[in-house]
Amino acid sequence: MYRLFYSPGACSLAPHIVLEEVCRPYELELCSARNNGEGTGAPAYLSINPKGRVPALAGVPGRSGGTEGLLTEASAILLYLGRRFPEAGLLPADPSAEARCLEWLNWLSDTVHSMSLAQIWRPQRFVSDPALFSAVTDKGHANLKEQYAFIESILSDGRHWAIPQGYSVADPFLLVFWRWGGKVGLNMAKSYPAWTALTAKVVRRPPVWRALEQEGLHAEPELAGLRDLPP
Amino acid sequence: MYRLFYSPGACSLAPHIVLEEVCRPYELELCSARNNGEGTGAPAYLSINPKGRVPALAGVPGRSGGTEGLLTEASAILLYLGRRFPEAGLLPADPSAEARCLEWLNWLSDTVHSMSLAQIWRPQRFVSDPALFSAVTDKGHANLKEQYAFIESILSDGRHWAIPQGYSVADPFLLVFWRWGGKVGLNMAKSYPAWTALTAKVVRRPPVWRALEQEGLHAEPELAGLRDLPP
Ligand SMILES: N[C@@H](CCC(=O)N[C@@H](CS)C(=O)NCC(=O)O)C(=O)O
Ligand SMILES: N[C@@H](CCC(=O)N[C@@H](CS)C(=O)NCC(=O)O)C(=O)O
Repeated sequence: MYRLFYSPGACSLAPHIVLEEVCRPYELELCSARNNGEGTGAPAYLSINPKGRVPALAGVPGRSGGTEGLLTEASAILLYLGRRFPEAGLLPADPSAEARCLEWLNWLSDTVHSMSLAQIWRPQRFVSDPALFSAVTDKGHANLKEQYAFIESILSDGRHWAIPQGYSVADPFLLVFWRWGGKVGLNMAKSYPAWTALTAKVVRRPPVWRALEQEGLHAEPELAGLRDLPP
Repeated sequence: MYRLFYSPGACSLAPHIVLEEVCRPYELELCSARNNGEGTGAPAYLSINPKGRVPALAGVPGRSGGTEGLLTEASAILLYLGRRFPEAGLLPADPSAEARCLEWLNWLSDTVHSMSLAQIWRPQRFVSDPALFSAVTDKGHANLKEQYAFIESILSDGRHWAIPQGYSVADPFLLVFWRWGGKVGLNMAKSYPAWTALTAKVVRRPPVWRALEQEGLHAEPELAGLRDLPP
């Protein structure tokens, strides 16, 4: 049985949603990403996953620096689950459509998450001196706004989902970033209507809502409000 | 026919190598990543690829913000070519082995490239004030050393290639980062022997060497020297 190391609302939410979509039952193991010396920073976790991050999925043959069977990287876990459970239809079999999914996953990971959002939330990765953190954070906000405008422009071209072929593993990942936008002060519904409409369709899927409930996020007004938007 | 937008020695080298491995002929279009207002920063390029980066591969159905048929993101292009040309054997069909490939691609993209190397080469992405660039660069060097040590530790576990199953699209990507290590002042051969041994096997493949020649990199002493290492 798979076991997912997750932190509520972290990027592990996307693999959590996909597990809920494709292969119940599975196990969840809470591992807080709050960086308070426990959770992702605890020695016990670092000994199984030296990267010290979530998500990580136990139950996937192979090893890459940590415990045998532990798969890291949100994109890799999403692609793996999509491919492993083709009957769920969350990853297109056509190579070009699959590549379009991965194009989303990689760009959201490297440019939006690892750069801009990390600048805002983890400036200590970019400069050592705490006096400089605000300079890093400011630039992170500016980067993020450009990137979110780009996301909105793509989603406004008439497509119904992240890739035109249909709902895929890229949509739950976009939901994570939509929610994060609100956390860093963006007015998501007003500034990003196409992205918000897509997110509303995502949260209305029963497996998605179950995952949000399990992470205690279903009571957030932004998410709860999306369920009531006119379809 | 595919057309790859590339810059010599940039991360586009990995898709270039894989094109050379799987599907000659294809076209190459030079697009310098030096950020001097031409190449990736030129209005003509931005109008077809608003991300303003290389690699980008023309000839892949679909669109994501730029011209129809243009696929961006090195990881997505690598996965696409691996899947599209299964007879070349550069991407395992088994979902867990494929996921291990992507685990490499995603982590190298988001943590090593988009964070640490960008801190060193493009500090302006992280802070606006040029007076702070050196603080960003210093921390980038520190991050990179930790990450390169982690790469070496994985490659020292007895495997012969990035994934134990055999040569895959992840190996040319590792070659790019090996070369970059030398550019930022690391002594790759001395500090990272397992990674260097792997890179030597990669550069000895005729398609890889052809791609290096086409990008004018074959005369670099580090790369040329690798060919003469005892196998
Ligand atoms: N490259 C990783 C990044 C994962 C990541 O940064 N996760 C965050 C939560 S969203 C985390 O675990 N942070 C804990 C920490 O930095 O200590 C991936 O794409 O999965
Ligand atoms: N997320 C992209 C990043 C690509 C990237 O940053 N490429 C660099 C060259 S290695 C580039 O084009 N830089 C030009 C610039 O920043 O203007 C990917 O993984 O392909």
